[in-house]
Amino acid sequence: MAPLDLALRQELLALQDAYISTLDTDALEQWPDMFIEDCLYEIIPKENVDQNLPAPVIYCDSKKMLRDRVVSLRHANIFQPVVYRHFISGLSMQSVENNTVAMQSSYLVINTSQLGQSVVYQTGRYDDVVLRTSDGWRFKSKRAIYDTSRIQTALAIPI
Amino acid sequence: MAPLDLALRQELLALQDAYISTLDTDALEQWPDMFIEDCLYEIIPKENVDQNLPAPVIYCDSKKMLRDRVVSLRHANIFQPVVYRHFISGLSMQSVENNTVAMQSSYLVINTSQLGQSVVYQTGRYDDVVLRTSDGWRFKSKRAIYDTSRIQTALAIPI
Amino acid sequence: MAPLDLALRQELLALQDAYISTLDTDALEQWPDMFIEDCLYEIIPKENVDQNLPAPVIYCDSKKMLRDRVVSLRHANIFQPVVYRHFISGLSMQSVENNTVAMQSSYLVINTSQLGQSVVYQTGRYDDVVLRTSDGWRFKSKRAIYDTSRIQTALAIPI
Repeated sequence: MAPLDLALRQELLALQDAYISTLDTDALEQWPDMFIEDCLYEIIPKENVDQNLPAPVIYCDSKKMLRDRVVSLRHANIFQPVVYRHFISGLSMQSVENNTVAMQSSYLVINTSQLGQSVVYQTGRYDDVVLRTSDGWRFKSKRAIYDTSRIQTALAIPI
Repeated sequence: MAPLDLALRQELLALQDAYISTLDTDALEQWPDMFIEDCLYEIIPKENVDQNLPAPVIYCDSKKMLRDRVVSLRHANIFQPVVYRHFISGLSMQSVENNTVAMQSSYLVINTSQLGQSVVYQTGRYDDVVLRTSDGWRFKSKRAIYDTSRIQTALAIPI
Repeated sequence: MAPLDLALRQELLALQDAYISTLDTDALEQWPDMFIEDCLYEIIPKENVDQNLPAPVIYCDSKKMLRDRVVSLRHANIFQPVVYRHFISGLSMQSVENNTVAMQSSYLVINTSQLGQSVVYQTGRYDDVVLRTSDGWRFKSKRAIYDTSRIQTALAIPI
């Protein structure tokens, strides 16, 4: 890998770490700000992606929708105080243009129930397009393509 | 992220990797040397931290106590030859002063029992303060704040 | 850590990420090309390594054997469409010579069955020797030393 690519890789890894840290510290109000206004965010089963059948479990196509989702999570939903932790590995860049990078990484989410037991909640692949803005890197699109189908579809939190 | 922060981040990630590598290769005798003399090390449930109730499962406030702990693990305790593996993700820096950094990261510990089955043992958050010394980065304080409450409290090994 | 070591560390982390990304995106045909011609690849239980008893579950000592393995996986084997995801942490370098590095890291493999349930499939330690070639870093030897003994020995995919 060329030195420039390695430097870029560090920035992208820092972005991914910031993303999951925002989720895992329950700083959900800051989560939409990691996206550009005109963004795409979806959670979709791998099976559907493989068969080219769009049917995301969650679909948001603007930062406003992400904000609405957070408000609804905070105010409307009744859910157990479950703890989630995200782990990322295997980042690879698919394409690098001037200020836009397409990249993938594997994610693992462990959750701990109110009873205090920790189990694998979900694994999958992040399929991301990120943009370098004057405020730093932001997500133009983020697709969480999950392997695990035995999850509750009433997903409480962003992945 | 500024280039200087990215460079610092690499050093801290290397420190975290060295820390878990020391534990996972059973090089426990080197573990205390990753701390300064006047240090704090504790393992404490998230529940207690959230409610501001100090009641750590393990509490050591000097490097000497860490060394004693290793000696006791080596000589006194009878425990099964269980294998632990640590995984870290989501490092974020909370504050950076000249030679001191406060940082957090998520950890996952998988253990493999004598029967050879691997399960999620514990997840949680490292809440660390590290100091740049003439010998490199050292932990001034390390708190392992665990989510999982269904763990044996007679914790055999450091987290 | 010296700046040069940190730069080297980034290259090795990028290599490890590329390795697991190749496996997890099912790009198996590219997997042998991450090794030099005269290579060693094995999957072996930790128990055997600890007792110095060689008895790997998989043993390949040339790139040709790796290629044969991929062909056989593609054509001969009947196995369920299981999804694997690899996660790596705790990279440490044991020795660094001009163009050769011995390094270790912990790995975790999660698999998702056809029924859609994700569980810990295997944990272990990569014990690697890598070589800087004109095409970039390549594996001279890669040993996947696994902790988990309760796995099917008819391992379908490379680790």
